[in-house]
Amino acid sequence: MGLEKTFFQKRVLVTGGLGFIGSNLAQRLVRFGADVFLVDSLIPEYGGNLFNIEGIRDRVRVNISDVRDEHSLKYLLQGQDYLFNLAGQTSHMDSMQDPYTDLEINCRAQLSILEACRKHNPSVKIVFASTRQIYGKPEYLPVDEKHLLRPVDVNGINKMAGEWYHILYNNVYGIRSCALRLTNTYGPRMRVKDARQTFLGIWVRLLVEGKPFEVWDGEQLRDFTYVDDAVDALLLAAANDAENGQVFNLGGECAIRLKDLASLLVDVNGGGNTRSVPSRKTGSGSTSGIITRTTGSSGRCLAGSPRFPCGRGLRAPLRITGRT
Amino acid sequence: MGLEKTFFQKRVLVTGGLGFIGSNLAQRLVRFGADVFLVDSLIPEYGGNLFNIEGIRDRVRVNISDVRDEHSLKYLLQGQDYLFNLAGQTSHMDSMQDPYTDLEINCRAQLSILEACRKHNPSVKIVFASTRQIYGKPEYLPVDEKHLLRPVDVNGINKMAGEWYHILYNNVYGIRSCALRLTNTYGPRMRVKDARQTFLGIWVRLLVEGKPFEVWDGEQLRDFTYVDDAVDALLLAAANDAENGQVFNLGGECAIRLKDLASLLVDVNGGGNTRSVPSRKTGSGSTSGIITRTTGSSGRCLAGSPRFPCGRGLRAPLRITGRT
Repeated sequence: MGLEKTFFQKRVLVTGGLGFIGSNLAQRLVRFGADVFLVDSLIPEYGGNLFNIEGIRDRVRVNISDVRDEHSLKYLLQGQDYLFNLAGQTSHMDSMQDPYTDLEINCRAQLSILEACRKHNPSVKIVFASTRQIYGKPEYLPVDEKHLLRPVDVNGINKMAGEWYHILYNNVYGIRSCALRLTNTYGPRMRVKDARQTFLGIWVRLLVEGKPFEVWDGEQLRDFTYVDDAVDALLLAAANDAENGQVFNLGGECAIRLKDLASLLVDVNGGGNTRSVPSRKTGSGSTSGIITRTTGSSGRCLAGSPRFPCGRGLRAPLRITGRT
Repeated sequence: MGLEKTFFQKRVLVTGGLGFIGSNLAQRLVRFGADVFLVDSLIPEYGGNLFNIEGIRDRVRVNISDVRDEHSLKYLLQGQDYLFNLAGQTSHMDSMQDPYTDLEINCRAQLSILEACRKHNPSVKIVFASTRQIYGKPEYLPVDEKHLLRPVDVNGINKMAGEWYHILYNNVYGIRSCALRLTNTYGPRMRVKDARQTFLGIWVRLLVEGKPFEVWDGEQLRDFTYVDDAVDALLLAAANDAENGQVFNLGGECAIRLKDLASLLVDVNGGGNTRSVPSRKTGSGSTSGIITRTTGSSGRCLAGSPRFPCGRGLRAPLRITGRT
């Protein structure tokens, strides 16, 4: 894909760089010979953890600061060739209990990052990590990028705004940006402490600990993205200027029912117990049964994106299509 | 329409109550015998002006405070039967120059208003004034509520978020809310000092002063809403609980080209000069040629909304249809 050449010796800043996806991205960038700078707030409830960069710790720079800290970000952004803007508040429940903190991180901080780029580094290329959550309950399946956005929690509304700031600054100021709407990402370095990032993390943890895990309803369909595929997509989006100002769903082509996923996990583990819980109605959209894979007919693929065949066990295929 | 009975002796709070639409609404509510409380910050660049309530000044209560002032709003909201939430930063240019202030007013303050309602007055009914600006450049005409939102300025993004907070709090917490996406509203008490609310204001002012006014491009189509019709729509939306959680376009059925509108104004005035200016590309969406009237086939009408025939001069017909 020539990505290695693209990022060789390039200065790359990753917000949320000690988190699940950020640290996997960092591993790859280090392998590509990039000059990698990771920013993370290490807020305990979020995904950042220094353990995530074991093995590359002496080959990256780390700066502990919060994206809400305008001054540090303004300094750190200067001179960067690429910004992978992954830092965010991701918990739907937390966003309902404390909507202001979610607003500060997912809206205001995004604005200040973009303002800093506009004033101090207008040639940077930005890839923003958005979420499929902003679609809310789907009107049709599979959900493509032409589907209306109907967020079902404060987090979704703020992420929607954060995404659009990026598109706006691309369109109005020429700060090259695009956004990927990520669906359930899984793989090494995934947060397993709780369900703040994905329910799959706590499922895996409880399974490994020999404890039963709860499956709500079980009939919902979900698609998953293996983290290496998410990293591929982030790098492709950064490398291709044809994607500037665009929004892409990032999801697998295969959907799986949660009860089937639970059975698969138990099989792979060689044993384990699940506990069925009737679906409960929440504002989190967790019962919405959304699938964010795309039809392909609605748009074009992200340049150079590979297509993996379905049916490779838990590893979902990567397909990135569409535009808005 | 029975609206008079609905609002008789009801406690009604209007944010932005000294502004163009707020003060026209207040006039009507006073006539209906409502207990009217107007909140306004009187920020000079915005639309509030005590002159707007001349004639009803001793029949309403006025509180000068800013919607960003959580404490005053928390107090003022208690015990209200209806909230017409009209206060906002409306200038597209200002939102680009100072995105943070726009965020504070159009996002954070909206969240705190809704939080105050949730905690201290969960039975209030809210109507939120949104804007057609959030559609951005239309993909098809006329634009209905199923059209994707693609805001073209910071103001549009923040208004989109503010609108969705209202829908969310309706859906999750049962705080009855709906939103109207207003298009170009005109009529008595319209701000004519500058183009911060609508270009029509400054056109009318310059015309009356005998000065030429600028017509950019002139080919764009716009539809207009007479303020009395906007007030009708706000009251209908408040009175009907079937509309809770819904979003409605509020626009006229007749579109007019800006150059034709300019000629009409000159005719009505019995003289005047316009100056043609080539269209300039801005982030404000001012050249987007959007029409926000709706097809009708996309949804149903707001209960009881009247339909005026086209062709009553400048007075645009009222039609409120659709749902999202």
